[in-house]
Amino acid sequence: MNRLLITGANGNLGREMRTRLTHLAKTIRLSDRGDLGEAQAHEELMPCDLADKEAVQKLVEGCDGILHLGGQSVEAPWEVIRSANLDGMFNLYEGARKSSVTPRIIFASSNHAIGYHKQTERLDAKSVTRPDGLYGVSKVFGEAIASMYHDKFGIETASVRIGSCFPEPQNHRMLSTWMSHEDFVRLIERVFIVPRLGCPIIYGASANAASWWDNREVAYLGWNPQDSSEQFRAKIDAEMDPPAGDDVNAVYQGGGFCGDGIHED
Amino acid sequence: MNRLLITGANGNLGREMRTRLTHLAKTIRLSDRGDLGEAQAHEELMPCDLADKEAVQKLVEGCDGILHLGGQSVEAPWEVIRSANLDGMFNLYEGARKSSVTPRIIFASSNHAIGYHKQTERLDAKSVTRPDGLYGVSKVFGEAIASMYHDKFGIETASVRIGSCFPEPQNHRMLSTWMSHEDFVRLIERVFIVPRLGCPIIYGASANAASWWDNREVAYLGWNPQDSSEQFRAKIDAEMDPPAGDDVNAVYQGGGFCGDGIHED
Amino acid sequence: MNRLLITGANGNLGREMRTRLTHLAKTIRLSDRGDLGEAQAHEELMPCDLADKEAVQKLVEGCDGILHLGGQSVEAPWEVIRSANLDGMFNLYEGARKSSVTPRIIFASSNHAIGYHKQTERLDAKSVTRPDGLYGVSKVFGEAIASMYHDKFGIETASVRIGSCFPEPQNHRMLSTWMSHEDFVRLIERVFIVPRLGCPIIYGASANAASWWDNREVAYLGWNPQDSSEQFRAKIDAEMDPPAGDDVNAVYQGGGFCGDGIHED
Amino acid sequence: MNRLLITGANGNLGREMRTRLTHLAKTIRLSDRGDLGEAQAHEELMPCDLADKEAVQKLVEGCDGILHLGGQSVEAPWEVIRSANLDGMFNLYEGARKSSVTPRIIFASSNHAIGYHKQTERLDAKSVTRPDGLYGVSKVFGEAIASMYHDKFGIETASVRIGSCFPEPQNHRMLSTWMSHEDFVRLIERVFIVPRLGCPIIYGASANAASWWDNREVAYLGWNPQDSSEQFRAKIDAEMDPPAGDDVNAVYQGGGFCGDGIHED
Amino acid sequence: MNRLLITGANGNLGREMRTRLTHLAKTIRLSDRGDLGEAQAHEELMPCDLADKEAVQKLVEGCDGILHLGGQSVEAPWEVIRSANLDGMFNLYEGARKSSVTPRIIFASSNHAIGYHKQTERLDAKSVTRPDGLYGVSKVFGEAIASMYHDKFGIETASVRIGSCFPEPQNHRMLSTWMSHEDFVRLIERVFIVPRLGCPIIYGASANAASWWDNREVAYLGWNPQDSSEQFRAKIDAEMDPPAGDDVNAVYQGGGFCGDGIHED
Amino acid sequence: MNRLLITGANGNLGREMRTRLTHLAKTIRLSDRGDLGEAQAHEELMPCDLADKEAVQKLVEGCDGILHLGGQSVEAPWEVIRSANLDGMFNLYEGARKSSVTPRIIFASSNHAIGYHKQTERLDAKSVTRPDGLYGVSKVFGEAIASMYHDKFGIETASVRIGSCFPEPQNHRMLSTWMSHEDFVRLIERVFIVPRLGCPIIYGASANAASWWDNREVAYLGWNPQDSSEQFRAKIDAEMDPPAGDDVNAVYQGGGFCGDGIHED
Repeated sequence: MNRLLITGANGNLGREMRTRLTHLAKTIRLSDRGDLGEAQAHEELMPCDLADKEAVQKLVEGCDGILHLGGQSVEAPWEVIRSANLDGMFNLYEGARKSSVTPRIIFASSNHAIGYHKQTERLDAKSVTRPDGLYGVSKVFGEAIASMYHDKFGIETASVRIGSCFPEPQNHRMLSTWMSHEDFVRLIERVFIVPRLGCPIIYGASANAASWWDNREVAYLGWNPQDSSEQFRAKIDAEMDPPAGDDVNAVYQGGGFCGDGIHED
Repeated sequence: MNRLLITGANGNLGREMRTRLTHLAKTIRLSDRGDLGEAQAHEELMPCDLADKEAVQKLVEGCDGILHLGGQSVEAPWEVIRSANLDGMFNLYEGARKSSVTPRIIFASSNHAIGYHKQTERLDAKSVTRPDGLYGVSKVFGEAIASMYHDKFGIETASVRIGSCFPEPQNHRMLSTWMSHEDFVRLIERVFIVPRLGCPIIYGASANAASWWDNREVAYLGWNPQDSSEQFRAKIDAEMDPPAGDDVNAVYQGGGFCGDGIHED
Repeated sequence: MNRLLITGANGNLGREMRTRLTHLAKTIRLSDRGDLGEAQAHEELMPCDLADKEAVQKLVEGCDGILHLGGQSVEAPWEVIRSANLDGMFNLYEGARKSSVTPRIIFASSNHAIGYHKQTERLDAKSVTRPDGLYGVSKVFGEAIASMYHDKFGIETASVRIGSCFPEPQNHRMLSTWMSHEDFVRLIERVFIVPRLGCPIIYGASANAASWWDNREVAYLGWNPQDSSEQFRAKIDAEMDPPAGDDVNAVYQGGGFCGDGIHED
Repeated sequence: MNRLLITGANGNLGREMRTRLTHLAKTIRLSDRGDLGEAQAHEELMPCDLADKEAVQKLVEGCDGILHLGGQSVEAPWEVIRSANLDGMFNLYEGARKSSVTPRIIFASSNHAIGYHKQTERLDAKSVTRPDGLYGVSKVFGEAIASMYHDKFGIETASVRIGSCFPEPQNHRMLSTWMSHEDFVRLIERVFIVPRLGCPIIYGASANAASWWDNREVAYLGWNPQDSSEQFRAKIDAEMDPPAGDDVNAVYQGGGFCGDGIHED
Repeated sequence: MNRLLITGANGNLGREMRTRLTHLAKTIRLSDRGDLGEAQAHEELMPCDLADKEAVQKLVEGCDGILHLGGQSVEAPWEVIRSANLDGMFNLYEGARKSSVTPRIIFASSNHAIGYHKQTERLDAKSVTRPDGLYGVSKVFGEAIASMYHDKFGIETASVRIGSCFPEPQNHRMLSTWMSHEDFVRLIERVFIVPRLGCPIIYGASANAASWWDNREVAYLGWNPQDSSEQFRAKIDAEMDPPAGDDVNAVYQGGGFCGDGIHED
Repeated sequence: MNRLLITGANGNLGREMRTRLTHLAKTIRLSDRGDLGEAQAHEELMPCDLADKEAVQKLVEGCDGILHLGGQSVEAPWEVIRSANLDGMFNLYEGARKSSVTPRIIFASSNHAIGYHKQTERLDAKSVTRPDGLYGVSKVFGEAIASMYHDKFGIETASVRIGSCFPEPQNHRMLSTWMSHEDFVRLIERVFIVPRLGCPIIYGASANAASWWDNREVAYLGWNPQDSSEQFRAKIDAEMDPPAGDDVNAVYQGGGFCGDGIHED
């Protein structure tokens, strides 16, 4: 690629990807509301509020790839979700539609779009959504925007329902949802390499033994996660008790989010 | 019911329902941004902007049933959709959650939530969404809100993907999508009568021969549409040519919406 | 048919069928543990305890059709269920296997074999069983016996998961489960007329608007229920309130059975 | 339509359709290898051997609709099937591809394309084929030709797996497979009226109670068969015994064809 | 666990598990009708006839895990099956229900619950049962008991349809059905470790290349069989011919059981 | 086996298999229209035109296994396809039916039988066919012949929809479709070893990361491809650009065949 835009580049996941994707494009354009530090040789820094439509238009212009990690990444009051994840998503796709180069987009969706499914269910890309909060609803919205811009304008998006993308799983539930940074990088490579992407839904998890998710619908991507959470099981077992059988962390795929109420302002 | 709220009571569908649902509740509370005329004996008029959270809270308070027809009902610029259908939907469900009486809700969703499916496909409640514009995206969002408030707080909603609810079908596509006012009334009765509703997706169409939609997942409601668009076929054939085979009105379930672009402000 | 055996002929359903099936066979052989009254011209009375293997052997001998209504028909202690529905079923099929004429059998199974499915689910013959008590478990057992004797010995059985076979539905749940006596007779006729029966699972309900059950797998039988419970809805609405939304009668297909415990001796 | 071509116009079904479809086109072009009699005012007679590629090219030229009833309509030796149904089908579609007007085509496929499915199975358009002889194989071939010319050249075909299209069903099996002439006419009308046909598989049977076939995939056509074989059941029961349970006419959907061998020359 | 009960501890599988599960509980309580030998330090020996309800009640009391291997493990006359597998199963679950500690249970079900499915079919947990004898019927019964006690009382059971659990596969059919002792131990560990088990159906087989069974529904358990029967193929090929293509051992999943009759007393 | 016939033994794939299958039969009978070179000790050379029915009868006589690689293997004019793939297939199966030994057959079908499915779809053996040319249609025909001869005469065939069987994948599309010669040999071994084959559809591809095909329906064969195209990805990336997203090689599973027209004579 010529220019890859990473939004949310100052978030945890954004900082990881900033250093791991340098082989994918000549220039990496980085954006965030927060501090982006020093630009490296191949980097462009473009701080931007995703709720600012005109700024987003400039941000997107000229990029042939976008890794959209930006926006609100956990539950929050409605106004926060609305600006960051609804306005932000709309602005990004309007920018993409009007850009002189049509970008291919990876949208960081979330397991919280399907969080109220039980852990004894097995989901694939055709499963109905069951969001577990306003954050999850905003991800269903984002996937709908991606679907519509694909059907109407041909913009291709990979919506990745990310499980838990950390260096290590941090509790028993994450033994099912964990995705290693390396596996995420492998997925990003595949999305930008395949000649025809379409607009798939992808579950973002490593090859965990205790997975609930089935990526059979996107076999054509050729993404093969290489890591597994099993190597961390003994460590987690040693550090904490598993949740009780009727704990939301043991019942629902979305875990703790399912037990929370709505965030008042 | 004690008190049934009808939002959007000044719209076409709202005005029809205002006169046809009087047997369902002791009091009908009517709301709209526009003029609501004179209150009848059993009516309460409460003009309200759905984007006004506090007003909506008062509007919902004390209602045990809500027929939510309000909001933007065709494609429009983002800001309009956002206020009417995103803020409005959130405010309505927050109102329901905080109300002293938990209402059962009928949400007027739309075929435009699945509009980019082809007319040669047959859909049911488990089919993936494919919205055909910002309006359609807002309906996917609305169904997600309903799903989440059901899973999290137990509020029951019937999301009705309304086809074309007019006195008569007006073109060839509507021979597939038409729902008579009488059949809609029958559906509303069933939704409020069954002891356990859950949170179903319902396709709102009469018993049309040329239907694309299969309500098998909601057989338990006992709704049997009695009307059929076939009686109007000859009339429509006489009035106009059918669309060409590659016309969006013949290709996609969402018809003309699928051929339109995004409304700029 | 030459000789049709009706077991449980002194039960409510047995007494109805005794008078309605006279056109199906030259001789109707009637059996029950209880009093069978006076034999009509075309009738043979053979009182019999289904737990008595030798007696059952004689009972079955020479019959080319069996309507097996006998056994325990509601929840009961284990010993009662075991004798009537486990021993009884085994004895009946051993009798059929050893008989000089291989009979075709209708087994009165029950909705309680799938009673813990929720009323918002739609079942067909492939749905997994979820029995709602020892009685329901005995019906799963009976269907398994029928399946095995079909695969191993070619004996054909129609297992009918009877809903509620009364003159009229008696409460709101039965608006979904009711089967008229006339529709049951129509079904019995079809089972004995089709040249090849196989070993189907059939949901025994009239053409009720509010059905939860789908008989698509047995379309080849040509059974078309003619009655519907809707005609009784107003009467039931007038006589009683519908169950509350969280009442077992509104939640589970098996209704009240799902709320009961195990019958101790 | 301007000009509708009927091939096989001298066959039983062809002669029926010749008189029943006059409202569908200004000119009906009739073709057969056999005698076509006198031309009526609106008719063009063009005798033609379907195995003659050049003649077929002329036959198809200028037709906007084709009802392809021609070819070999029962089992026959390979050379007969090959000429009439393989060469004939190829020639017809090559003709259609090269014609100055692209026709919409109805292909008279057959239940013998799926004849080895058992009568206790229920099929829809997605079921795998199981042809019951060379004739059935030729129909699978024909559907494949239709599919390929649709995907490659956009020619639309309705492949109708005709059951038994006679004035009355003639035996017990036909109570499941019968299609009245009137229902076939209704289907032909729908195929030529809908703006977008695609390339569907349709089971050609009336609304028979004992059907094995499910047309759910083509609900969008709006075809509602009005007749049912049930009215003839008593008559057939009076005229003949039903086939024994292990007779091919009672076991397989294709009936007697399934018991036959291969026709040697 | 505090106390794990193993029933059938003197059977082949029971003796294996007695020595391999010592890491799972502080105390292993062992039961059988036969001789249990000397108790090891961490063992409790409680000989018991499963048909003796009161004895079973005492046996179960205080156990937080049960591995139910007891009962009749091959085809037998009805009275034997009934006592060991029907009475025994009922008594065990009544014991569990009344125990001061609710145990989690592993029920040794069997491939003979689905034995009449052909070897060319692929099954998962939703496939219909097709028992291949009285033994297989008793396993369908057992799974029904487990399902009912889960829905009614919340007792969690893993019903494991064990294929062939021997040190090595012993014939060609077992190349498909074999489960190594090590893989069974791994499964038992997973069942007792996951916080929420539910009431799943699990196919008990190693990662055999020629498997007929798909455990996709229980991916959430995180059970990954590590062994494969392929390593024994050459040995079996050398020792015996494969069964002929129409031998029951080559046709049905249940193998030889499918060719046997009913055991008379 | 006693005698294995390989047709098309002078083709690319035939020459490979000639040397790799010597362990499978005492005698390898080789056939082709072209030059077959020198016979090795265990070989019989029988040049033959598959369109010559009598010659094919002699060719097949006495073989207990057939690897049918013969016929036209790429798109060609109708007459060529008809002789080689329609007549040839019919002749082969008539030969098999009349042979004194009933052979088991491997039919080299092709991915072009399903070529018009998009690369974003995932197929299994139950997916509908979508041939991408006359060659693809002839493979659908061949699978239908195999199905019919199995249902009617019990002849067992493995129809292998071969992807791309070359020493190495030669372009990006083949990273999805490639099958190594070694994996094909493994498949052939399994087909001839299993006691009961039936008449399965098998996708012939190695364990490629980017596969579109799911062989779940034939797990019972125990075929485990060992190779993967991923090892060649870097090489192909270095040698050529991937096809553009709207290139037929990136859109359809059949690749370039989907962009071609019909071959005129």
